Amino acid sequence: MKRLAFTLCVALLAACGTNAPSWTVKEELQSPNGRLEAQFLIYPDGSPAYTLTFDGKDVIKPSKLGYKLIGGMDLTKGFTFEGSEHGVIDETWEPVWGEERQIRNNCNEMLVKLKREDGVAMNVRFRLYNDGLGFRYEFPMENRLTYFKVADEITQFALTGNHTAWWIAGDYDTQEYNYTHSKLSEIRKYNASQTVASAMSVQTALQMKTGDGLYINIHEAEVLDYPTTNLELDDKTFTFSTLLTPDAEGVKGRLQAPCKSPWRTVQVCEKATDVLASRLILNLNEPCAIEDVSWIHPVKYMGVWWEMITGRTHWSYTSDFPSVQLGVTDYSKAKPHGRHGANNENVRMYIDFAAENGFDAILVEGWNEGWEDWFGAQKDYVFDFVTPYPDFDLPALNKYAHDKGIRIIMHHESSSSTVNYERHMEAAYNLMNEYGYDAVKSGYVGNIIPYGEHHYSQPLINHYHYAVVEAAKHHIMVNAHEAVRPTGLCR
Amino acid sequence: MKRLAFTLCVALLAACGTNAPSWTVKEELQSPNGRLEAQFLIYPDGSPAYTLTFDGKDVIKPSKLGYKLIGGMDLTKGFTFEGSEHGVIDETWEPVWGEERQIRNNCNEMLVKLKREDGVAMNVRFRLYNDGLGFRYEFPMENRLTYFKVADEITQFALTGNHTAWWIAGDYDTQEYNYTHSKLSEIRKYNASQTVASAMSVQTALQMKTGDGLYINIHEAEVLDYPTTNLELDDKTFTFSTLLTPDAEGVKGRLQAPCKSPWRTVQVCEKATDVLASRLILNLNEPCAIEDVSWIHPVKYMGVWWEMITGRTHWSYTSDFPSVQLGVTDYSKAKPHGRHGANNENVRMYIDFAAENGFDAILVEGWNEGWEDWFGAQKDYVFDFVTPYPDFDLPALNKYAHDKGIRIIMHHESSSSTVNYERHMEAAYNLMNEYGYDAVKSGYVGNIIPYGEHHYSQPLINHYHYAVVEAAKHHIMVNAHEAVRPTGLCR
Repeated sequence: MKRLAFTLCVALLAACGTNAPSWTVKEELQSPNGRLEAQFLIYPDGSPAYTLTFDGKDVIKPSKLGYKLIGGMDLTKGFTFEGSEHGVIDETWEPVWGEERQIRNNCNEMLVKLKREDGVAMNVRFRLYNDGLGFRYEFPMENRLTYFKVADEITQFALTGNHTAWWIAGDYDTQEYNYTHSKLSEIRKYNASQTVASAMSVQTALQMKTGDGLYINIHEAEVLDYPTTNLELDDKTFTFSTLLTPDAEGVKGRLQAPCKSPWRTVQVCEKATDVLASRLILNLNEPCAIEDVSWIHPVKYMGVWWEMITGRTHWSYTSDFPSVQLGVTDYSKAKPHGRHGANNENVRMYIDFAAENGFDAILVEGWNEGWEDWFGAQKDYVFDFVTPYPDFDLPALNKYAHDKGIRIIMHHESSSSTVNYERHMEAAYNLMNEYGYDAVKSGYVGNIIPYGEHHYSQPLINHYHYAVVEAAKHHIMVNAHEAVRPTGLCR
Repeated sequence: MKRLAFTLCVALLAACGTNAPSWTVKEELQSPNGRLEAQFLIYPDGSPAYTLTFDGKDVIKPSKLGYKLIGGMDLTKGFTFEGSEHGVIDETWEPVWGEERQIRNNCNEMLVKLKREDGVAMNVRFRLYNDGLGFRYEFPMENRLTYFKVADEITQFALTGNHTAWWIAGDYDTQEYNYTHSKLSEIRKYNASQTVASAMSVQTALQMKTGDGLYINIHEAEVLDYPTTNLELDDKTFTFSTLLTPDAEGVKGRLQAPCKSPWRTVQVCEKATDVLASRLILNLNEPCAIEDVSWIHPVKYMGVWWEMITGRTHWSYTSDFPSVQLGVTDYSKAKPHGRHGANNENVRMYIDFAAENGFDAILVEGWNEGWEDWFGAQKDYVFDFVTPYPDFDLPALNKYAHDKGIRIIMHHESSSSTVNYERHMEAAYNLMNEYGYDAVKSGYVGNIIPYGEHHYSQPLINHYHYAVVEAAKHHIMVNAHEAVRPTGLCR
């Protein structure tokens, strides 16, 4: 790697004679092909910042880095540059599944070390690829900070103009929006966010195109034990800032040093197709932590599901109950309403079709007790994930499917009651093991329990991760719905 | 039971010619010995209320009943009396453990049925014993209400004067207060509540003594799937009202019809010792739900614990770590600070002493990794409940104890991270089964995770219950600390 040492190169502010603060370029980093260049800057008041250029042209103008903490500490300034470490990563790894057999991970790396007089240590790690930048905050062990709470992460992305963008509204709970294709200046006008405080926020991954035809994508990688972020636009300066999802107490991250933030990423591509071809997000994630991956495989599946979405049949079994109490409500005495989709006959028909047409599996929703009143009540004990409806013969249907070379995919609708789901998870995974299910579609429809949490807040990020880790112990694959945007953990 | 039918007996308001609303006595109920009498009243606006007298003298003056719901429904009025059912309970049951072999449950019972024009059905069940009253709300299945959220339970206890009281400050999270002995009028002056909104609230059980020498105790029984209550005083009228513990969203109870509130209880005794001798609270609880109770037994135990409280030794093992990350922090390389209480030698000494002095068991705190930084950080993954410190040889110490006829009592300090505790509970109970532990002291020190919850809010009440139910499956007895006040579930 080409090491550039700029230690006191004061930037010359162009034109206009304003009192804009002048920064010092402390470090520079180039992509392996030399076309992308990132700079780490520091302002006279100790504010850290960065820039990104492509072929010498600005992609990200000087943009702030740092945090504001609960309790008032302002970690956007007061830092001294303590040095840096540079390195090169060039390796090839094999994904467990995916579009290609091998993926090359090639970037130049730079760790910038920052410290304050009060003993706060905060480092920023940059990795610059040919197709984009990743950077993250790292809080080392040697630190005044041990346990700390984030009021706001102040990571900025100062764009060079009023780019075209493909975006969905910022939200703490759902990605179920249509994409809007507009100028950045039109986000204010078209924003239809249902829950987020700011009408100026959009979600990651945010795709943009500059007037010069460059494709820029801002996203995040390896979100673990940390909330996901929205991006809030200042439409006077065309600068986005991170807007983390708060937890039930309004905290936007509870951190314990040593720890790392997720990666903040800026993909830069000349062709739209290169955005899709990029493996930046995967490369920024840690290697696979699972030793035996033989049970992980892609599945071509169909589902007893769409006929419920369209209203032809229902997830529920009966209309007898105004409200269900699991373990108390007696389904054996209920009169079926006759439109229950997950019934033996219908499921066998799907299995036959799947076997005849080259599918591997079928998903069956609405197989278990509780669908009569699962929705909208923020019900806690909504499902037990192990008790089938009277007309769904779980052992017999599994045998019927397996005899035809088809697997049934389990369905766990948590109804966003993660406390309840975790209480029943082990028994549910055990049931799956007993009958040879190797995949589950999980769902998170509705408001979250624990009360006051959001789908994208740190405790929920931890829940999704917990669910996958526990499933892996059972060699069960998880297809999580309404959970959180992908940040490359699939690696 | 003597059935009294007062259907339109308009009460004559005494003296003073005010415009106080007049009520109608709808039902009356007497205690088996006839000395206590409860009346159910209804006001012209359909407000339900009740009274309680002892030997014809007021104990509780007309006091409101009902609820206010989130969304604005006011269930303190608008009700029509739809009739009642009367009955007698006289039975004797055997507690699994306790002070006596048999307990008599003898009371007269009355179910008052109320309905509103909008279809809301709310019944009130009264049980009147010789030593006090219990009453609860019941929401039947046939109801406009199915899922509903409590803004406030409006249950009043209008006392006859400025009684003497033994009380602790109202709080949503702790009972760790010294008892104050004062007049009710002095509660405002001496209240030292740390967290509750109202400076006029005290906790149940509230003990009082009237000027006539009568002992009155207000408490609650069978608190299940419902928050516990504080009692808020209006010190102009000497009327207490229920002040339920809110959850993280400020909801004071999420109910699903059919359902029941906890019992509200008013003990009335002529002698102070009769307050202790009363089995009212136990009698109002359901019979034991556990079929095989052979593993439940009282234990006389001592603990490796007080020497930590006094500071002679510590729960922690080392001073090496500014912060611990379980599974990452390597204790095998840590330098012990030399004052770890739960070390092999010390625990063996305790076992010897226990065996020589007629104890059954010893509790050992601080045996497991994580005590270096467990407190005050609202840390989520604070303990795993299965990994001992390097100087605590779990199998060997258990064998040493068992050889001397002593059991070790397990210690699970959840640090109030109930999400984490539930994730590790099954493995922790399995470890206990493996080594023959049959009792656990659990602890709930610090702020609750899920964030924003309180020790006495409905989700936590559910957690404590869940922990006991899961433990029972493993034949493990639970001694829960910092959990919630006893309401007779021990039955």
